[in-house]
Amino acid sequence: MGDFGDRLARHASAIDGTLTAILDEQTDVPERLHEAMRLAVMGGGKRFRPFLVIESARLFGVADGNALRAAAALELMHCYSLVHDDLPAMDNDRLRRGRPTVWAAFDDWTAILAGDGLLTLSFEVIADERTHDCAEVRGALSAALAKSAGVSGMVGGQMHDLMADKLGEPTEPTLDHIRRLQAMKTGALIRFAAEAGAILGGASPEAQNALRACGDKLGVVFQIADDLLDATGDAETVGKATGKDTAAGKATQVSLMGLEAARETLAALADGAIADLAPFGEAGKILADAVRFAADRKS
Amino acid sequence: MGDFGDRLARHASAIDGTLTAILDEQTDVPERLHEAMRLAVMGGGKRFRPFLVIESARLFGVADGNALRAAAALELMHCYSLVHDDLPAMDNDRLRRGRPTVWAAFDDWTAILAGDGLLTLSFEVIADERTHDCAEVRGALSAALAKSAGVSGMVGGQMHDLMADKLGEPTEPTLDHIRRLQAMKTGALIRFAAEAGAILGGASPEAQNALRACGDKLGVVFQIADDLLDATGDAETVGKATGKDTAAGKATQVSLMGLEAARETLAALADGAIADLAPFGEAGKILADAVRFAADRKS
Repeated sequence: MGDFGDRLARHASAIDGTLTAILDEQTDVPERLHEAMRLAVMGGGKRFRPFLVIESARLFGVADGNALRAAAALELMHCYSLVHDDLPAMDNDRLRRGRPTVWAAFDDWTAILAGDGLLTLSFEVIADERTHDCAEVRGALSAALAKSAGVSGMVGGQMHDLMADKLGEPTEPTLDHIRRLQAMKTGALIRFAAEAGAILGGASPEAQNALRACGDKLGVVFQIADDLLDATGDAETVGKATGKDTAAGKATQVSLMGLEAARETLAALADGAIADLAPFGEAGKILADAVRFAADRKS
Repeated sequence: MGDFGDRLARHASAIDGTLTAILDEQTDVPERLHEAMRLAVMGGGKRFRPFLVIESARLFGVADGNALRAAAALELMHCYSLVHDDLPAMDNDRLRRGRPTVWAAFDDWTAILAGDGLLTLSFEVIADERTHDCAEVRGALSAALAKSAGVSGMVGGQMHDLMADKLGEPTEPTLDHIRRLQAMKTGALIRFAAEAGAILGGASPEAQNALRACGDKLGVVFQIADDLLDATGDAETVGKATGKDTAAGKATQVSLMGLEAARETLAALADGAIADLAPFGEAGKILADAVRFAADRKS
């Protein structure tokens, strides 16, 4: 995975440049708000979702430079969700990647507004002509992003998650319920990431469907790997506290299926996601590596 | 103003129908989240911003039915901002229009997610082909809405407002600072409302500029009238607690200029906003009535 890691890091660096430029373009912003947004966005991270946008766009001959702003918009969306999820009223997390979360560094109201600002900025970037010169493409990206991030996607998934944590609802969560929750909370944005390249590249419906199917499975792979890390990883390698779910008695795919079955499910889904890439032949190899990376990740 | 009031109520009823339909279209949404969004959106209100969208669109021959979804998207944006502003971490308001606010009826996390969901839904509605059949128009609406609602608009204005309330910054607020704060917090969305009709109708740049100029002044009129109501109105007529700003020692245009100067400024700005409508002749009369309504309102 050395080559893949290098490529991921190279794209992350390009995305960081675009994100910095986008934040710098925001003028007339109260300084405290600007700082909070910078902390939220420029806190490192693998930039895995933007990587998927850039690489899926490459399948259709879209130059990296022409995918970077859409990829950055998606990352802004992801970052806002972390800022709000970390709030005391939500997951109450003080640390993320070893640094204070936005509310811990500032306060709750600054974090709420920074999140609102990033969410709005994500759509502003998508609507910008620099993101793509065709209005139809920008509109399709905006519609797909809104659907993925909204109440039947990411926000709805976080709602299900908090209903479990705070209200104990449902009392007996089934594997189906957890899968649906995770498909909404984590899967929707990852699916969008895989799909975005097809939209940017004006791909055929078949190609778009193949990437969507791959993205769907990749989202679950990503989440099961996360659950496995929480259950079995050590905090130092993972870079955040582990064993949280178990300690909280939280239902995950791992707790409901057991370690072995979870590992088998993960492997089968990873194989399926890679099979979905078959129509792209040799060109799909990098995305297949991304699936393997998500499945095998140690942090 | 009887005729104007009737017209406002008629449009409000059409907008309520569109908002209900939009909320009903959202499937796969956790029920608690759906209920919180309904409370946030269907809580009455004059629907003044959507009224401006519909009436400014009429100037360019856009049928009401073709302006309703853009108008509803703007109202969703306005409603999300109220849900987040009311939070304990922000303005800590338990009541709005005599009903419990979303966090008071549910809890903080539900209110944060309901707000996030409404904000995202606003952009989903704008990106929808049913809002306008031309992708360029939808893109222009989306870009203008994001700019108005974002960190250099509404979110930035709320940030300035909370920095004053919670941190006492700046220590000596000037009239210029307060005007800028209010132009961002309240003015930006009202300006967008006036401008949206011009975008929907494919108006000339001159017509669009005239409406933007009118909307800018109308936003200030709206805010000074609000400050005057807080300073002089009685709670029963206004429908919410008054004297809050004075009790909190909050700097407003009224507190900084005094009642008389504030009333004169308001009258002059209302005259100016009406003058901006001159290019539209007789057709601009309804929007002029809207300016008078905002200036004279008792609640």
